Amino acid sequence: MSRVETINRILRNLQAASPAVEASALISEDGLMLASALPQHVDESRVAGVSATLSTLGSRAARELERGDVEEVLVRGSYGYAVMISASAGTVLLALASREAKLGLIFLDMRRAVDDLRKVV
Amino acid sequence: MSRVETINRILRNLQAASPAVEASALISEDGLMLASALPQHVDESRVAGVSATLSTLGSRAARELERGDVEEVLVRGSYGYAVMISASAGTVLLALASREAKLGLIFLDMRRAVDDLRKVV
Repeated sequence: MSRVETINRILRNLQAASPAVEASALISEDGLMLASALPQHVDESRVAGVSATLSTLGSRAARELERGDVEEVLVRGSYGYAVMISASAGTVLLALASREAKLGLIFLDMRRAVDDLRKVV
Repeated sequence: MSRVETINRILRNLQAASPAVEASALISEDGLMLASALPQHVDESRVAGVSATLSTLGSRAARELERGDVEEVLVRGSYGYAVMISASAGTVLLALASREAKLGLIFLDMRRAVDDLRKVV
């Protein structure tokens, strides 16, 4: 199995484990999509861009607010969650979840996925 | 009691309820500090600026990622949490908490504080 196939399988497994996770993607810190499992109507490059920007600013905010190195950034909106977890080699794992999601479970499943991603990225 | 005194009392009550909350502040969306209970060595204007920037970008990200209107932004760093909750009239309640904090409790106490803030801001 190629590296890209392995990454895609990890993303699909994350969404299978947490049905509330509607979409997931692995994004480089310079805003490029490395792999994704997004709904068809979603513009990949916009998602990658806004996620990388938020992740970079989260990193700056963590330092300036004396919280150390950034590990996770979460945005909760009226329709659900966007969660970003630092993966490896300057990449970020993004998951989009519905409002009904159990946040603790999503963090748990995402951290497991990050452990798997670190073996291949 | 003046409005500013009431806001300061709400911030102090938040920190008394959650000892893991090390600092808190009410910040306008244009990056001005309205009230704060921060450690002395912290630069208020930098905290207000970075928090307002993160909150604004969180709002844009929530819309672009189809999560609706932003309600909360969380950054977890190696030393702890920065949590921002939309309060009222374009303000954001910020809390900085240690790594040992129970995130669910902090969200609960912050939402209560936001309910109180909405009565006076």
